[in-house]
Amino acid sequence: MHTTLTIVNKTHIIIQLRDIKGEKMLYEKKRPEPPEEYYRVPVDVLKEYTIEFFKAFGVCDRDAEIAADVIITADLFGIESHGVQRLRRYYYTPLAKGVIKPHGNISIVKEGPTYAVVDGNNGIGLIIGVKAMRIAIKKAKKSGVGFVLVRNSSHYGIAGYHAKVASDNGLIGISMTNSQPLVAYTNTIGRNIGTNPIAVAIPTKNPPPILVDMATSIVPMGKIEVALRLEKEIPLGWGMNERGELTKNPKDIFHGGALLPLGGLGETLGGHKGSCLAILVDILSGVLPKSGWGANVYSPSSGRSPKVGHFFMAIDIEKVMPIEEFYSLIEAYKKYIKGLKKHPNADRIWIPGEKSWRTMTTRMKLGIPIHISVMKELEEISRELGIKEYYEKIKRNAKRLLS
Amino acid sequence: MHTTLTIVNKTHIIIQLRDIKGEKMLYEKKRPEPPEEYYRVPVDVLKEYTIEFFKAFGVCDRDAEIAADVIITADLFGIESHGVQRLRRYYYTPLAKGVIKPHGNISIVKEGPTYAVVDGNNGIGLIIGVKAMRIAIKKAKKSGVGFVLVRNSSHYGIAGYHAKVASDNGLIGISMTNSQPLVAYTNTIGRNIGTNPIAVAIPTKNPPPILVDMATSIVPMGKIEVALRLEKEIPLGWGMNERGELTKNPKDIFHGGALLPLGGLGETLGGHKGSCLAILVDILSGVLPKSGWGANVYSPSSGRSPKVGHFFMAIDIEKVMPIEEFYSLIEAYKKYIKGLKKHPNADRIWIPGEKSWRTMTTRMKLGIPIHISVMKELEEISRELGIKEYYEKIKRNAKRLLS
Repeated sequence: MHTTLTIVNKTHIIIQLRDIKGEKMLYEKKRPEPPEEYYRVPVDVLKEYTIEFFKAFGVCDRDAEIAADVIITADLFGIESHGVQRLRRYYYTPLAKGVIKPHGNISIVKEGPTYAVVDGNNGIGLIIGVKAMRIAIKKAKKSGVGFVLVRNSSHYGIAGYHAKVASDNGLIGISMTNSQPLVAYTNTIGRNIGTNPIAVAIPTKNPPPILVDMATSIVPMGKIEVALRLEKEIPLGWGMNERGELTKNPKDIFHGGALLPLGGLGETLGGHKGSCLAILVDILSGVLPKSGWGANVYSPSSGRSPKVGHFFMAIDIEKVMPIEEFYSLIEAYKKYIKGLKKHPNADRIWIPGEKSWRTMTTRMKLGIPIHISVMKELEEISRELGIKEYYEKIKRNAKRLLS
Repeated sequence: MHTTLTIVNKTHIIIQLRDIKGEKMLYEKKRPEPPEEYYRVPVDVLKEYTIEFFKAFGVCDRDAEIAADVIITADLFGIESHGVQRLRRYYYTPLAKGVIKPHGNISIVKEGPTYAVVDGNNGIGLIIGVKAMRIAIKKAKKSGVGFVLVRNSSHYGIAGYHAKVASDNGLIGISMTNSQPLVAYTNTIGRNIGTNPIAVAIPTKNPPPILVDMATSIVPMGKIEVALRLEKEIPLGWGMNERGELTKNPKDIFHGGALLPLGGLGETLGGHKGSCLAILVDILSGVLPKSGWGANVYSPSSGRSPKVGHFFMAIDIEKVMPIEEFYSLIEAYKKYIKGLKKHPNADRIWIPGEKSWRTMTTRMKLGIPIHISVMKELEEISRELGIKEYYEKIKRNAKRLLS
C-alpha cells in the first residue's frame, strides 16, 4: 500500500500516517491525553505480566491466559477502564480477600440440549464468561440456539469479548451481565441498578465482526473516573447529583449521585427505555440464573461475594442459511451503512465495533498507552506478588510518548 | 374497595377517582387532548368494527379477530398511533392496492427443533406475527428456547403484543421488527434506518406482565404525527431537519429530516447506542430471515411490497426453574423497583408495561378515546367497505367527552 508519512513527533504519527486514499491508517478512539503522561507498552509484554498476575493468585496457566486475554483486549479496544488499570481494584483486592476464588471451576447446575444453568462458584468472571459462552456455542451448533445462565460470578470484563467468542466461531453471540448498582432507575434518585451492558457480535467474512458492546447507561462508570483523574467536567446529562439534578461535576456522581440510563433524566428523551433495558438485563442475567440482582450485586471492593450474574446466547446462522450467503448479505449491509449521507459535523460513519477494531490494530503496532500512574501501580503490584521481572520487562520495552 | 369520587366533569373523572390509599384508580398515559375533540367508544364495538374491516378485504374470521385484537390492544395500551387511526394508511391502502394480501397463510421455509424460517407471503403482519410467535412458543416448550425468522411480512402493529403472546403462555417473549427508514443513523443525515422496535415480555403471576416495548429511536413517528396534528412543537432532540440540525418543528421531520436514535444526535449522550440497537434489529429481523433491510423496507403507502421482517423468540422458564419460584422472584424484583427513592420531580416509579396496563384497564371501563377526525375516517371507510352498520354502532355508543 502506498502511504504518505509525515512524522511531526511520535504522538502525531497517528494522524499523519495515511494511505493513498487519504484514510487514516492508524486510529485510536481515545488518544493518550496528555501524551506526556503516557508510555506505550508492547502488547505481548503487557499480556505476559497480566498472565503472571493471575498465576500469582493460584490461577492455572490456561485460565490465566483466558483472563489476561479479556483484560488486554479491553486495552486494545480502547476501553482502558476495563484494562490493566483495573487489576488492583477488580481482581487483586477481591482475590486477596478471598471473596473471589482463583479457580476456574464452574459447575453445571442444570442442563438441556439448548440451555445450561452454571454456577461460577465465586470464581473469576473473566474466565467463567468465556467457559459459559463456549457451552452456549456447543449447544447452538447442535440445536441451532443455546443459552447459558450464570450465577455467583464476578466482573467479567468487557461484555463484547464474550460475544466475540461466538462470532469467532461463526455464530451470533449475545452477552449480558448485571453489575453493582451505579445508575438511577427512571423517576428515582441514587444508585439502584447496574450499568448492565448488552453485547452482540455478528460474524463477518473478514474481521472486524459487527460488535455492539454497550452499557445500558449513557456512559459506564469508567468515563466518570477518567474525568475525575483529568479534573475535567463531564457533559451535562451523563449523571445526577444526590438531589437528582443534572451535574457537570464528576465528583457529584460519587457523592450520593448516580449515572443516568441511556435516554437520560426523565422520559422526554427516552430515559425510561435505558431503564427498561437495564431491568431486562438484570432479569435475564440476575433473576433467571438465581444470582444477585438490583442492590444484591456487590462491587469488587465491597469485601462481599459479588453475586454477579450473566446471560449468554449463541445462534448458529448455518442452520438457517449457508454462512457464505450470510457473509455476503452482511457485507452488503456494511456497504449500505458506509454509503449513507454523512452528517456535516461528523468525522466519518462507523460500523458498530469498527472503532475498537481499528484501535486494536493500531495498538498492536504502536503498543498500548499506559498512564504513568498505572505504570506505578503495576510496579507496586509486581513487588507485592513477586512478579517483578515481568514489570521490569514492561519497563524495558515501554516508550515515553514525549520526553 | 373504598373509593372517593369527585366528578368535576367527565374528563376529570380520571384524576379524581382514587382508592383508599390515595392511589389513582383510573389512569391514562395519554389523556385525550383537547377533550372536546374526542369521543369515548366502548372497546367491544370498536373491535367489532375492526374485525369487519379486515373481513371486508377477505380476511377469514379467525385471522380478522387476531388482526383486530392487535390493533385494539394498541388503542387500549395508549399507543393510539398504532390503533384504529392507522387502518386507512397501514391496512386499507396496501390491501386495496394488493401489495398486502388478505390471506394469513404463512409458509415454513426451513425448520428445526428450535427454529423456523417463515415466509409471510406478503400477508398482514398483525396476523403473521402472532402465528410466528406461536411457533416459537411451541418450539420453546419442547426445547427450552425457540426462534422464528419472518420474511415478506408487513407492519405487525405494536411489537409488545407479540412478545405478550409468549408471556401469556408463561414464557419470556422477544419480538423485533424492522420498518421503513425513518431514523438517521449516527453521523448521517436523512432517513436511512427503521425505528426498529424491540419488545420483551416477562410473565408474572398476576397481570400486568413486565412488558418492554420500545422503538430504538427516541420516539416513534406516531409522536411526530400527533404534534403535527395538534400544531405543537416537539422537544429539542427528537429529530433533525434536512441539514442535520436539531429541530422543534415537527414539519421539518417530514421535509428531508429524520428521527434520531435513542441517545440522540452524535455520540455525546449515546446516540451511537440507539443506532447500534437499530442495526441489530435490522440484522436479526431483516438480514437473517432474508427479508428487506435498510432502505429496502417500504412504507405501507408506497405501493410496493413492504418486505418487513420480524424476529421472534420464546424462552421456557420452567426448563430452568419451577415457574412459581420465578414468579416469586419477579414479585420481589418489582417490589424492589417500587421501593426505590422517588425523584422529587417524578409522579411515581413505574414498572415497564405498567402504564400501558393501567391505561388498558381504564379504557376497558371508560371506553377508548377517538378523535373526531378519526371518527370521520372510520365513517368514510365503513361506507367504502359496506360495513356502515358497524360504524353506526360505534356512533350510537360513543360519548362526547365535553359537549
